[in-house]
Amino acid sequence: MAQQHPFDRAIALTPAASGDGAGLTGAPAQGDAAERGRMRRLVGQTSPDYWNVAGPFGGITAATLLNAVLLQPDRLPVPLALTVSYCGAIRQGAFDIAVRCLRGGRTTQHWAVDLTQGPDREVMASALVVCVLRRDTWGAREARPPEVDPAPAQFGARPGKGPPWLVHYREHLVRGELFRGNPHSETVTWVADAPARALDYPALAAICDAFFPRIFLRRPTFVPVATVSLNVYFHAGHQIMAEQGATPVLAQASGQVFNEGFCDQEGRVWGLDDHLLATTHQVVWYKE
Amino acid sequence: MAQQHPFDRAIALTPAASGDGAGLTGAPAQGDAAERGRMRRLVGQTSPDYWNVAGPFGGITAATLLNAVLLQPDRLPVPLALTVSYCGAIRQGAFDIAVRCLRGGRTTQHWAVDLTQGPDREVMASALVVCVLRRDTWGAREARPPEVDPAPAQFGARPGKGPPWLVHYREHLVRGELFRGNPHSETVTWVADAPARALDYPALAAICDAFFPRIFLRRPTFVPVATVSLNVYFHAGHQIMAEQGATPVLAQASGQVFNEGFCDQEGRVWGLDDHLLATTHQVVWYKE
Repeated sequence: MAQQHPFDRAIALTPAASGDGAGLTGAPAQGDAAERGRMRRLVGQTSPDYWNVAGPFGGITAATLLNAVLLQPDRLPVPLALTVSYCGAIRQGAFDIAVRCLRGGRTTQHWAVDLTQGPDREVMASALVVCVLRRDTWGAREARPPEVDPAPAQFGARPGKGPPWLVHYREHLVRGELFRGNPHSETVTWVADAPARALDYPALAAICDAFFPRIFLRRPTFVPVATVSLNVYFHAGHQIMAEQGATPVLAQASGQVFNEGFCDQEGRVWGLDDHLLATTHQVVWYKE
Repeated sequence: MAQQHPFDRAIALTPAASGDGAGLTGAPAQGDAAERGRMRRLVGQTSPDYWNVAGPFGGITAATLLNAVLLQPDRLPVPLALTVSYCGAIRQGAFDIAVRCLRGGRTTQHWAVDLTQGPDREVMASALVVCVLRRDTWGAREARPPEVDPAPAQFGARPGKGPPWLVHYREHLVRGELFRGNPHSETVTWVADAPARALDYPALAAICDAFFPRIFLRRPTFVPVATVSLNVYFHAGHQIMAEQGATPVLAQASGQVFNEGFCDQEGRVWGLDDHLLATTHQVVWYKE
């Protein structure tokens, strides 16, 4: 059996020990609605491979919260939306996950996920996830990818020193250099997991937080930052995701406003044949 | 005393009767963390003024969920982010709101809000909200508003028949006509509450869902739609919001992709002096 990819080790979750099923749903369990609202508990461990400075890389947390929903046997097949509130700095070691199906229909299904630590179950991250059934309909692509040269055949990990998670992506910068005090914050980069790994929804969610903070593009020196809230919309069904495989994606991002300690980021992740795989948005705290 | 604005009536909430404080937090109440995580329960009523076709206008639901947090005396002063999962069609009449502070720090504070109906507390909508303390820092505006003529001195409610909520906005279309089968989905409009009302964060949140569905711009005829998930980032502090008053805002939106029953929307809401008041994103189910 091939060795597990560090990404898969990082997002791995197992069911919590039985008897720990009490929890967040206020009403007693009765019938279908209660089964749906039942709290499902999982446990996981932070990964040294995707460690950032004062906690895990936010993208791996997003991927883990999404994975908690994808592991539910009664979920609809395709994730559509993921929003993560980064509530506190996750400590190294074990964490608990509580997954609740808020409501399910034939074509959309809403989930809430909390990541907690410690005996008091302090909430470190919380997510809303929507899974859907995609159907053949009229469609159109309106946004177009930036015109860039193809990805080079070979490109490596991000250069220089940095937190551990950086080496688990290889990246080729097309435009947008850090710490130059640029007049705008746009970057365009080719990105892929390192080592190579076929793209799936958790990996795509993580890539949506792998952009450098926009303020690093605007300011001439390092500024302390923290992602407060991350939003990802998945626009591709399983077939397009499968066709992407381990081919690098084209990631484009820009900030609209930097104001009173908070800035935003809007990003797009492009796949083969100009498919828009994901759009992503975040708000970031900064100290300056 | 002046008559209450229909918007304020629509988002009004009152504390639930005492004794109904049991709820979603699993752990027993102990100390500060438990006080923070304590479930706070409120009750409200759907508003006929902001009724849509098969439920309330999504913007009024978003504003109500935000208001539930703004009513908490221990919240930080400025909302930064709001994400709403529209889980099911809210029925006419009473609803219950459960508010939980997930975690609070000095500068960011994370909240979760559920809107439920019925004895089984079926979740109809769920939100993540972030409130913050804004501080004087380096700042920059990167996005620019579209170049348009000033708003006309007089403009009225949306023309034609439609659901009740439409008459509670007046709108002047700058570009982007519905049901013409346009090659792109961009619209630019001047928007204000009707009757006039000073802008605040709940009203801004509601305006972020008052854009027509992007697919109405692309298709030649009506298509059934439903917002699945809405995201709003608030970029202005209280002073800029106060300066805006009841002056119309400039609302710009476009869709990036329409695929297999779901499309997206990215919007920007501009205020006086080219201030970007909010950016907003949503994913929408459509049937075609």
